[in-house]
Amino acid sequence: LTSKLPQVGTTIFTQMSSLAAQYGAINLSQGFPDFSADQALLERASQAILHGNNQYAPMTGLPVLRQAIQDLIARHYNRQVNADTEITVTSGASEAIFDGITALVNAGDDVILFDPAYDLYEPAVSLAGGVCKRVVLKAPDFRPDWSEFASLITDKTRLVIINTPHNPTGTCWQDDDLEQLWQAIKDRDVYVLSDEVYEFIHYQTQNVSVHRHHQLAERSMVVSSFGKSFHLTGWKVGYVVAPEAINRELRKLHQYITFSTVTPLQQAIGEHLLSTPTASAELSPFYQAKRDVLREALASSRFRLLPCQGTYFQLLDYSEISDLDDVAFCQYLVKEVGVAAIPVSVFYQNPPTEQRLIRLCFAKDETTLLSAAQKLARL
Amino acid sequence: LTSKLPQVGTTIFTQMSSLAAQYGAINLSQGFPDFSADQALLERASQAILHGNNQYAPMTGLPVLRQAIQDLIARHYNRQVNADTEITVTSGASEAIFDGITALVNAGDDVILFDPAYDLYEPAVSLAGGVCKRVVLKAPDFRPDWSEFASLITDKTRLVIINTPHNPTGTCWQDDDLEQLWQAIKDRDVYVLSDEVYEFIHYQTQNVSVHRHHQLAERSMVVSSFGKSFHLTGWKVGYVVAPEAINRELRKLHQYITFSTVTPLQQAIGEHLLSTPTASAELSPFYQAKRDVLREALASSRFRLLPCQGTYFQLLDYSEISDLDDVAFCQYLVKEVGVAAIPVSVFYQNPPTEQRLIRLCFAKDETTLLSAAQKLARL
Ligand SMILES: CSCCC(=O)C(=O)O
Ligand SMILES: CSCCC(=O)C(=O)O
Repeated sequence: LTSKLPQVGTTIFTQMSSLAAQYGAINLSQGFPDFSADQALLERASQAILHGNNQYAPMTGLPVLRQAIQDLIARHYNRQVNADTEITVTSGASEAIFDGITALVNAGDDVILFDPAYDLYEPAVSLAGGVCKRVVLKAPDFRPDWSEFASLITDKTRLVIINTPHNPTGTCWQDDDLEQLWQAIKDRDVYVLSDEVYEFIHYQTQNVSVHRHHQLAERSMVVSSFGKSFHLTGWKVGYVVAPEAINRELRKLHQYITFSTVTPLQQAIGEHLLSTPTASAELSPFYQAKRDVLREALASSRFRLLPCQGTYFQLLDYSEISDLDDVAFCQYLVKEVGVAAIPVSVFYQNPPTEQRLIRLCFAKDETTLLSAAQKLARL
Repeated sequence: LTSKLPQVGTTIFTQMSSLAAQYGAINLSQGFPDFSADQALLERASQAILHGNNQYAPMTGLPVLRQAIQDLIARHYNRQVNADTEITVTSGASEAIFDGITALVNAGDDVILFDPAYDLYEPAVSLAGGVCKRVVLKAPDFRPDWSEFASLITDKTRLVIINTPHNPTGTCWQDDDLEQLWQAIKDRDVYVLSDEVYEFIHYQTQNVSVHRHHQLAERSMVVSSFGKSFHLTGWKVGYVVAPEAINRELRKLHQYITFSTVTPLQQAIGEHLLSTPTASAELSPFYQAKRDVLREALASSRFRLLPCQGTYFQLLDYSEISDLDDVAFCQYLVKEVGVAAIPVSVFYQNPPTEQRLIRLCFAKDETTLLSAAQKLARL
């Protein structure tokens, strides 16, 4: 049995969460909340299951949810999109990303991405026969070098994958980044996949989103997920916003991969969004408080805290504490210190050898964060 | 924007369900129930959402659900499988099928399937760079010709896709079919994908399943879905059973395509299966009654009823009523007669020109079935 993905093992998230369970460590590795979602939303889901429709949703998503997404985008980004032709609901952002890459990338195409990168872009590109070219982002600020980016673009370039707020680094792009990207691709047959699942979790005045760059948006698939925005990573309801021509191709994949997404959960989220339009605005201050609890508790430790502008991930530089590489250091942390973290090197194809970085997820109750910080601060 | 799937449009199921809504027709096209699921199961799901875990399930599926599936297979088929290594929960059977095909089929491989075939096999094969070879099944009995099958096998053959009980024909294979299949592939590097989503909906003593053929099972991915077995097509919880080596490859796809499946619904189904082990045994008599209501109501019509041994689909031959091809006839039915059906030709690559067949879904309340039959019987 020859493997289609010979280089791939079990993802680091599954590995670290298992180790955390095995060693009874506090799990700040895989990104998911350890607190409950809004009770009103859970009630809606319960009602939708007990009294609503439990059969196939329309392939493109329930109308009430697509309507709510349309409103959300209009409200937050002042962008008007067509709910019928430009929005597709998917079984999590993962499926949206897989569909998008598979729809657009042909054998021999180049795809440009920025390393460190979330783990599922590369396998999807390689299954489609594409080749990843990488712009390497370096600590501490992880700024993209746009002249390096421009030098990678050729006639073979088909897709650019971007991600802001950025997992794992917690950095956010600036408006100028989108404009640089646009200038570099505008005269070419190049599309953009923008992974914006942390769009409502940022610690600056405004989130930089492709939705705000109207020209770029006409070339882009913008992916987001209610798992992040509503503390419900186990619901697996995501979506993609893209111009009709791109969406038409993406839907061809979606209709054969999962066909449709859980009906009563779509119903609940759609109703909740329409009736609680401010919900997403509360997310950033909520997570900023958690970030600050974690940062303050580690401020006098020997870890160096990197800036965190968005997402619910905080990077720590441990070079004053250990010479171990980050995979070994995370093994040590989970087994000996009682805290599970994610090594940042696994997000790179060629990790910078000088970097000593781990990622902590702070989507946790304050007591969880304080216990973990206490253990880490002893080092 | 060149299309990866240029020949593909919106699936017939989406088209016909939209037309049914547009024309106010009784929808016997897309396969889904119009009645409610077991209230106890809905209650469990509601409780799991309100008081349980709404974060990521383990990538391979919740332990309680994998345990329940293991028990189900032991009870029904007397087959022992390992819940950790041989079962993977997916976001519907569609995802399981896509994952399985993508994991096993390489560029240039041949895949053998039996026409008429469910619409999502071929696009997945072609995206993987494989080529479909087809054994054509013909009305009225749709029996596979095993010598024709054997003649299609070459060194390029990698995968055989089978489906029993069979959508759209409602036929079931016999034990001898599995043995013929096994004899034809056993000395070759050929795998089997067995789509058994209607495994508990059959009108004969025992269902023929790959689970019962222990040698074949060691080469197979057996796919099933709770959407069919629990009248909850909108929940999108499916699974695959396969030997560890195959499952390992399939999980590499699953972890990047949807990563995991809705946690509280897995919990509810797992608990329900463990506490109600007889649930699946009630399914066949339940649907047999519906089948018989439909058949009796059409017995004296000018439609000829084909045998229906399994699934919730009934084929009708309309050659005494109309000369239209089946796509045109279904358009006529939905617009003029008020009943939506599925043309059988869309399941074939090269539809037999002499066939005049439509498919009706009888997973409907008795009153729905009688109203539809009344309209059809007027023709
Ligand atoms: C799908 S498991 C990984 C969750 C996540 O987004 C992360 O931890 O980066
Ligand atoms: C996924 S929509 C199609 C449902 C179905 O299995 C059928 O109608 O054949």
